[in-house]
Order: sequence, then C-alpha cells, then structure tokens
Amino acid sequence: MEELKEKIRNIPDFPKKGIMFRDITTLLQDPKATKKAIKGMLEPFESEKIDAVVGTESRGFIFGGIIAYELGVSFVPVRKPGKLPFTTEKASFEKEYGSDELEIHRDAIKKGDKILVVDDLLATGGTGQAVKELVEKLGGEIVGFCFLIELSFLEGKEKLKPYKVFSLIDYTSE
Amino acid sequence: MEELKEKIRNIPDFPKKGIMFRDITTLLQDPKATKKAIKGMLEPFESEKIDAVVGTESRGFIFGGIIAYELGVSFVPVRKPGKLPFTTEKASFEKEYGSDELEIHRDAIKKGDKILVVDDLLATGGTGQAVKELVEKLGGEIVGFCFLIELSFLEGKEKLKPYKVFSLIDYTSE
Repeated sequence: MEELKEKIRNIPDFPKKGIMFRDITTLLQDPKATKKAIKGMLEPFESEKIDAVVGTESRGFIFGGIIAYELGVSFVPVRKPGKLPFTTEKASFEKEYGSDELEIHRDAIKKGDKILVVDDLLATGGTGQAVKELVEKLGGEIVGFCFLIELSFLEGKEKLKPYKVFSLIDYTSE
Repeated sequence: MEELKEKIRNIPDFPKKGIMFRDITTLLQDPKATKKAIKGMLEPFESEKIDAVVGTESRGFIFGGIIAYELGVSFVPVRKPGKLPFTTEKASFEKEYGSDELEIHRDAIKKGDKILVVDDLLATGGTGQAVKELVEKLGGEIVGFCFLIELSFLEGKEKLKPYKVFSLIDYTSE
C-alpha cells in the first residue's frame, strides 16, 4: 500500500505543534487511488455477510457512505450530539481534553444486524469504542472495524476488542 | 419521485418549534432507494463533463462522496473553519442568527476544472452561495448544483444564479 500512502499528505504541527496530520483530501482528489483504497478496505470482509455500514461524522461519512453504496447495504450515520433528529442512543468517549458524546438513531439497527464500522482513521480508538458501545446497545453484531489509516503506535486497536480490526495503511510512529 | 419522498422521515419541531425536519437517514437505510436517489440526482448532468464533485460537511459528504465515486472523479470537501489542514480559501454566509464560514483547500481545484456541487438539502441557499464563491475563487467552472431535497418555498435557488440547479425531491411548503 506504499503507493496509496504517497497519496496522503503529511502536514506537520496540525492541529497543534508536534502532531503530524495525515491529510486524506489528496487521496480523494485521485479517483483511481480512492477506488483502490475502497477495494483494499473491503477485501478482508469479502466473505462476510454485512447488513449495514456505520460511519462517524464527518470524514467517516465519506468512506462509510461509499462503502455502503459499493456493498449495496444500509448506511447508518453516527453523529455529534443534537444533530440526529429522531430518538437516539448516546455514548461518551474520552478525548485529549475532557470527554465528548456520539449518537445513533435508535431504530437505525435491528437486533442481529451484521455491522461493518468504517472510518478514515484509527488513532487512540476513543471514537471507535463509542461506536462499538452504540452498536452493541442496539443489538447489532459487529463484523469488524475497517479503517483507511491506523496510527498503530497509539494502540487504539486495544479498545475495539474482541472485534476484527483492519486498516489499509499503517503509521508505526508519529 | 413520490416513492423516494416516502423514504424521508418527517420530524416536526426539529431543530426547533415550527420547523418540519426532513430526515434522510431513513432513505440511507434503504440501499435500493439510495441507489435510485443517486442515479436520479445524476441524470440531469449525464451529458456534462465533470472533473470533481464538491461536497459540504457533514451530510454533503455522504452524497458527494458517493456521487464522486459513481462518476469516477475527484471528491473535494468543503468544511467548517479550522478543520482542513492545508492552506484554505474562506467564504462567509448568513445563517438564521449571525454568520458562519466555510473553507476549501486552495489546491483542491485547478483553474477550469468542471465542478458539480452536491448536497443533501437546498434550503435558504446560504451554504450553496458560500460554496459557489469558494469554487469561483479557485477558478473552477460550476457545471451545476445537485441536491437530493429542495425546500423551494425558501427560494434558495435565487442565490445560486446563474448556475443550473437540480433537486430530486421538492417540498413546496413547510
């Protein structure tokens, strides 16, 4: 996946000093690379039955939306508080400073639905853990977590146990 | 498009009293209806050359991402201030109370690129007008604006002149 990694722009000191930001917008500007990324993200789940893709606001909407469309299954958005108009379940997660919440529509997943969770980036795993909690609350069965990028040195995978976690592109250090 | 309209959930008094919110998450839960919506949104632009789709955070990321993927062209995100990591252009727009800003990466569009602007909803047209300004600033040529839903009683189309505006589903009153 070195050729896809080259499509990702590295921006030092964003959003703050000392952080190397992995900018996926340059990948999205290249439709061939985007197609390759989507196919690569789906490959490990090819033999799985999937009923719905869950994607988290905002970049997870791009990859989650495309992957749901490609698979021909439902797309279920997870959003920041107050954005979803119907009855929701909530889960909180730790951020660098303080905590935040995520919501899902209560009727978005039926008991036993096979769920693929998609996002652009696995960092500390806080968001993923909240999504895991939301899907489990609604009785969904998580088939796996699928990321374009993983910052494996942050060990976010630990928080998503016992589920299968796949990332197409790995950064093993900052 | 009556059958697609039936897939949209109507939620009274959201986000506040007197507003009938059109909830697209129920459409996205139905993959056949979603496919039909995407095809329907693209139909009026079939004969056009398109280089990139511009989609606005957050729901525009879902439809814009899928449409760019379907067309095999670049996807360019427009985001709220401070979210895009590279050098940006900014445009402000009027909201119900006060104003807000949107940003686009300066290198996301080349002069002369043919741009399709995609979003889920055309209401007052404030967001669309800001996107128009951003694309024009970068020298992009707008092929048209493409929405899933239009609230035509708010006359947002006026703000997007002189460009072609297409909406698949129209609500002519609140």
